[in-house]
Amino acid sequence: MKLEKLVGDRFKERPADCVIDSHALMVKGGYIKYVANGIYSSFLPLKRITRKIEQILREEMDKVDGQEVQFPVVMPASIWEESGRYESIGDELLRFTDRNGAKMVLGMTHEEAAVQLVREYAQSYTKYPFMIYQIQTKFRDEARPRAGLIRVREFTMKDAYSFHTSQEDLEQYYQRVHKAYERIFERAGIPEVVSVASDSGMMGGSLSHEFMLLTPIGEDSIVLCDDCGYKANMEAAENISDIPRAAESAELEKVHTPNIHTIEDICEFFGDKTNNSCKAVVYQKNSDDSYVVVFIRGDLEINETKLVNYLGDQIHAAVITEECGLNAGYIGPVGLHINAPHVVLYDKSLEGRNNLSCGANEEEYHFKGLDMERDVKDAEYHDFAKVYEGGICPKCGKKTVRISKGIEVGNIFQLGTKYTKSMKMTYVDKDGERQTPIMGCYGIGVGRLAAAVCEAHHDEYGPIWPKEIAPWQVHLCAVRPDNEEVKAFADDLYEKMQNAGIEVIYDDRTVSAGIMFADADLLGIPLRVIVSPRNMKQGIVEVTSRDKTLKEQVPVENVFEEIQKYL
Amino acid sequence: MKLEKLVGDRFKERPADCVIDSHALMVKGGYIKYVANGIYSSFLPLKRITRKIEQILREEMDKVDGQEVQFPVVMPASIWEESGRYESIGDELLRFTDRNGAKMVLGMTHEEAAVQLVREYAQSYTKYPFMIYQIQTKFRDEARPRAGLIRVREFTMKDAYSFHTSQEDLEQYYQRVHKAYERIFERAGIPEVVSVASDSGMMGGSLSHEFMLLTPIGEDSIVLCDDCGYKANMEAAENISDIPRAAESAELEKVHTPNIHTIEDICEFFGDKTNNSCKAVVYQKNSDDSYVVVFIRGDLEINETKLVNYLGDQIHAAVITEECGLNAGYIGPVGLHINAPHVVLYDKSLEGRNNLSCGANEEEYHFKGLDMERDVKDAEYHDFAKVYEGGICPKCGKKTVRISKGIEVGNIFQLGTKYTKSMKMTYVDKDGERQTPIMGCYGIGVGRLAAAVCEAHHDEYGPIWPKEIAPWQVHLCAVRPDNEEVKAFADDLYEKMQNAGIEVIYDDRTVSAGIMFADADLLGIPLRVIVSPRNMKQGIVEVTSRDKTLKEQVPVENVFEEIQKYL
Repeated sequence: MKLEKLVGDRFKERPADCVIDSHALMVKGGYIKYVANGIYSSFLPLKRITRKIEQILREEMDKVDGQEVQFPVVMPASIWEESGRYESIGDELLRFTDRNGAKMVLGMTHEEAAVQLVREYAQSYTKYPFMIYQIQTKFRDEARPRAGLIRVREFTMKDAYSFHTSQEDLEQYYQRVHKAYERIFERAGIPEVVSVASDSGMMGGSLSHEFMLLTPIGEDSIVLCDDCGYKANMEAAENISDIPRAAESAELEKVHTPNIHTIEDICEFFGDKTNNSCKAVVYQKNSDDSYVVVFIRGDLEINETKLVNYLGDQIHAAVITEECGLNAGYIGPVGLHINAPHVVLYDKSLEGRNNLSCGANEEEYHFKGLDMERDVKDAEYHDFAKVYEGGICPKCGKKTVRISKGIEVGNIFQLGTKYTKSMKMTYVDKDGERQTPIMGCYGIGVGRLAAAVCEAHHDEYGPIWPKEIAPWQVHLCAVRPDNEEVKAFADDLYEKMQNAGIEVIYDDRTVSAGIMFADADLLGIPLRVIVSPRNMKQGIVEVTSRDKTLKEQVPVENVFEEIQKYL
Repeated sequence: MKLEKLVGDRFKERPADCVIDSHALMVKGGYIKYVANGIYSSFLPLKRITRKIEQILREEMDKVDGQEVQFPVVMPASIWEESGRYESIGDELLRFTDRNGAKMVLGMTHEEAAVQLVREYAQSYTKYPFMIYQIQTKFRDEARPRAGLIRVREFTMKDAYSFHTSQEDLEQYYQRVHKAYERIFERAGIPEVVSVASDSGMMGGSLSHEFMLLTPIGEDSIVLCDDCGYKANMEAAENISDIPRAAESAELEKVHTPNIHTIEDICEFFGDKTNNSCKAVVYQKNSDDSYVVVFIRGDLEINETKLVNYLGDQIHAAVITEECGLNAGYIGPVGLHINAPHVVLYDKSLEGRNNLSCGANEEEYHFKGLDMERDVKDAEYHDFAKVYEGGICPKCGKKTVRISKGIEVGNIFQLGTKYTKSMKMTYVDKDGERQTPIMGCYGIGVGRLAAAVCEAHHDEYGPIWPKEIAPWQVHLCAVRPDNEEVKAFADDLYEKMQNAGIEVIYDDRTVSAGIMFADADLLGIPLRVIVSPRNMKQGIVEVTSRDKTLKEQVPVENVFEEIQKYL
């Protein structure tokens, strides 16, 4: 098509409200337009990109025996009540009532709809395994949409759901999808995406992986070990502590510590390191405001997602009142008087430790010489600590942990029976027994993937779209189209390419070469063909690639063949 | 793919709740599954059909210079407040608030979103004309969803919006889209669709057309003249009255008519025909409950949509109270004491008439000898009457009107400046003056089109899908796949077809030929290829078409070529 006709504005200035480059480039390149917080319209160039991404997704899902279906965007609350998520999910699930007062939700994910679609069909083991997927609009009422298409409220997603009669079968299939995802990111032009073990969060289930594009602007943190190749997200990475128990335990001694409240202050007061202390971090559960006291080694931090997953409840920072039995600034594991529904938890970093300092649950007093084994006999230890840069790799045990930022561009989950069980989906096995099928689910956000590709491949002038998802393949520029020779040659080349089925955008506007090339940079088409009066005089045409690996002067008679060869 | 793996149940019994055939066949053929009132999920066969329809729509929209874009499903109420439709549209516009209390709507149509997308871009006349379209999920909270995919609440729609600098330009473009629509319905296999002039309803604007598939199960009525080719929907068709004024007017005479209330009774009482009477039909406006009294010829009925369009307000049947000044059963145009905000209207069928009977606005009294010109001097006449079978064609004037039922499968509207004006979209014309652009809009529902095709082309056993939108092209049946020769030949043919890119579904289940063919009928694939032990013995394969125009025994060595030839 002709660039002159392309609907959408391109402009020079970086929009003020854009923090990351892909957001800025998509706004100034005429790809998206803001409609409301976290809600965008798309112009043709992005639509062409997302259609190509969708085609890749479709082909790769079909290759792993997926069947494309479609679930509704608007669903009755009833099926979400069956799974229990109508209650358990927070405000990001948009709930409303229709004209008849029926409770409805906007689909943010479709496990319930998938089970609803197939639970009558798949009543015999002979129907398994199978996988259904859709490419459909979703709505997630995010508290803080940000970064353009990276975190929006309305988005298009490919979501797939597989059903199995055994965990082994799920695991085999899960590996096939893992490979399909690698192919997808490769075809979309970001083969550098890595998969990391992850926490399953609100989806339920056990094993899951996130596919991450590592980039400093990512909003997720990833734990990497360059030595052994370990990769996990922060929630899934276990914190390893290697400080051994001292050979001798000192006695527990109460010390007067006026005006000392923080663990750093008490360690300084005792002349000891913070990793020889036991600090308390206090939360309250969102459900009933009961207190959750977590003891952890003084130099470590709590990973709240780990804690939430352990509790099965959302939490917030505690407000410590006079009546609650907690002595803010002096909380310690010995002599702590707090009963159910309140909870006291211990991080693994304290397991077996001795000679620690800690609060004495008394105003202006701390203990030194705390021995967990001796003084806190009934403690059970779990992993609540945040992994840190330079920490110990949970796989190879070396102090090689690196923390990197990333954008999650896909995820796969082994869901187990969470949805099939709650929604009473069963099948009859070979022996005539009723069984509950096992599910997997597999998601990729289409718009976020486009934005991630832009984030990975751009320069200061615009995106550098990989061939397979570029909106057009060739950007033809007729510089000075008022020159008859230029116009005639460019027109002819344009027609030839169109007839050959080459996706070409043709700029024959009467504008300066500067404007023309700036627009071409913003559109990021892989191959640029420049016809100009000077070139014509020399009998050549300039052919360059957007990624700057190619810059050639091609004799006019060979241009068409050169273009075909490149593509 | 193999039929054995196809997710979805097919069954024999017609579902009890299905009134029309396409609904029943889509449920029992494993195309759709009910999720909630007017909300369905789709299985693979329908998804393949709708994807093909979407591809046709895309190609035809691109041919008329359309650019594919995407608007959000969830929109801020603010842009609907700008156009005024946030207030003016009824409960079918689903309104809700997000987690921050912001007012939102679910898109049932996207005129507002279209203007929002381009109003900064299209500020100069040089950008015009242009057209943008999307294929997207919509939600319309219908009071009475029915008939499967014909009238649903959630649906996928192709909606297009064009912008122009003159009415002439819009009209030219409108004709191009009209032709594109004819091509679309032709390619989708229903060239019999007719376009009818229609009323614009809530969309605003002047001229519009509906594309109708004529079928007895349609929910719309269409006025047709087989003589001159006139076509319009009931709202758009003017009722023509040809009863002339009598040469002599009788005097107005009040007659005592106890216990006579209906116009039929009074005409019988006077020994006259009902078309020589003037009856009153009374409504109340929804907005303020004020009365609307419409006088019309006694044998005619009111078309309420015509009345609503005239009033610009919704109406309901009146509740006539003692205080309202109306004398139920005796209402007439002479001596009627009713003031604003109440309204009195006259249908064109009364214009110039005399010697009519009517109510006298007095208990137990009617008039005879009413002369509209003499007795109701200030009456203005408008067309509110329902056109009837055998009535007068408004185009050729013959008594040839035929009323037919139809399903609306598309519509096109000349919108004028309703949205651009209210949303303050302007451009600068050649002379530097600010102008308001003129819009057109063009819709086709994807699921409804699929259902309409099924409705038009099916038999009692299943749909008969036209080639271009059929989910697969060939249905290969291996009858008795336990027979080695059958299995080997069918497997080989299946592979050959797949390698040749032929869309084939392969049934090699160990089921009876009866079950196999019943399933094939429900899937409605154009070409069926049957390999069976008996055929094998004769060295042939049976090739039949779903529409029964083809039934051949093809020598095994020619089968593949025959299939290719047919497709």
